[in-house]
Amino acid sequence: MSATVDIVVIGRARTPWLRREDTPHQPVASPETEGTIEIDPEFAPALADLDTFGRIWLVFLFDRSRGWTARVKPPRGGPKRGLLATRAPDRPSGIGLTSVQVQEVDVGAGKVAVRGIDLLDETPILDIKPYLPMVDAWPEAGHGWLEEYLDAGIEPRLRKPYRPRRGG
Amino acid sequence: MSATVDIVVIGRARTPWLRREDTPHQPVASPETEGTIEIDPEFAPALADLDTFGRIWLVFLFDRSRGWTARVKPPRGGPKRGLLATRAPDRPSGIGLTSVQVQEVDVGAGKVAVRGIDLLDETPILDIKPYLPMVDAWPEAGHGWLEEYLDAGIEPRLRKPYRPRRGG
Repeated sequence: MSATVDIVVIGRARTPWLRREDTPHQPVASPETEGTIEIDPEFAPALADLDTFGRIWLVFLFDRSRGWTARVKPPRGGPKRGLLATRAPDRPSGIGLTSVQVQEVDVGAGKVAVRGIDLLDETPILDIKPYLPMVDAWPEAGHGWLEEYLDAGIEPRLRKPYRPRRGG
Repeated sequence: MSATVDIVVIGRARTPWLRREDTPHQPVASPETEGTIEIDPEFAPALADLDTFGRIWLVFLFDRSRGWTARVKPPRGGPKRGLLATRAPDRPSGIGLTSVQVQEVDVGAGKVAVRGIDLLDETPILDIKPYLPMVDAWPEAGHGWLEEYLDAGIEPRLRKPYRPRRGG
């Protein structure tokens, strides 16, 4: 049996993405999509000063994922890859990571309006962190096994076209 | 009462940083420090293909943090800041995020040798993700309220000087 830890949920995402199969694979695929992070009242005062940042990390739970396997078929094709060498949603931890642009922060209401969001509506938010280029931006890091698919201009294959229901 | 979720721990970090007060505030403060991520056998096969990446994200638990407050005093000085507008370790979720360089991956042994690690020894690892510049690198994002401290060349104040006990 694996060890587990109890992690607090600090809020929820409200987005136009209602179905897993419609949701973009990363925020770059939905740069215009707007959403709101609703933070529980207990944690809302901790949002102070967040509006000084242009970009933030959302650490969230892939709450509609269904178990995991050690190797997964990537949406751009090719052989199966080790799960931890992908950003696939079905992971042991269930933890997701995405960066979004900050539009407006209402500390009193516990609301953060964001842009470029790729999360499903109602996704549980575990943490918000400021994006800090000095430690987070490594443009020359390389894309590993993905490089050849990016070079060839291959986009992820989706089961259904994007169809946001509201906003976006 | 806040909602909580159960998150699986996939492994542990082995690093030369034994005391909280010695540990660097971010990997850029310890670019040479080497460490090993030890992944439990159940999850080790999911490390396949990870060696193709130059840099990875470690999603971890600040397991020696002691509660949280909505506003915290930053190590670079100035007024208290909203906790979620900082990368401080004492957070509601207890989740930390750091990027490190990959040195070597031994899938069979479940070991990832890394460089530039700022985690305490024995830190629980919740997830490993490949660093993907196309979605993770935003060098122009700005540093929010931190900008003026960076411009002034102010470094974080530490309670004690760095004193790694082994490696590093």
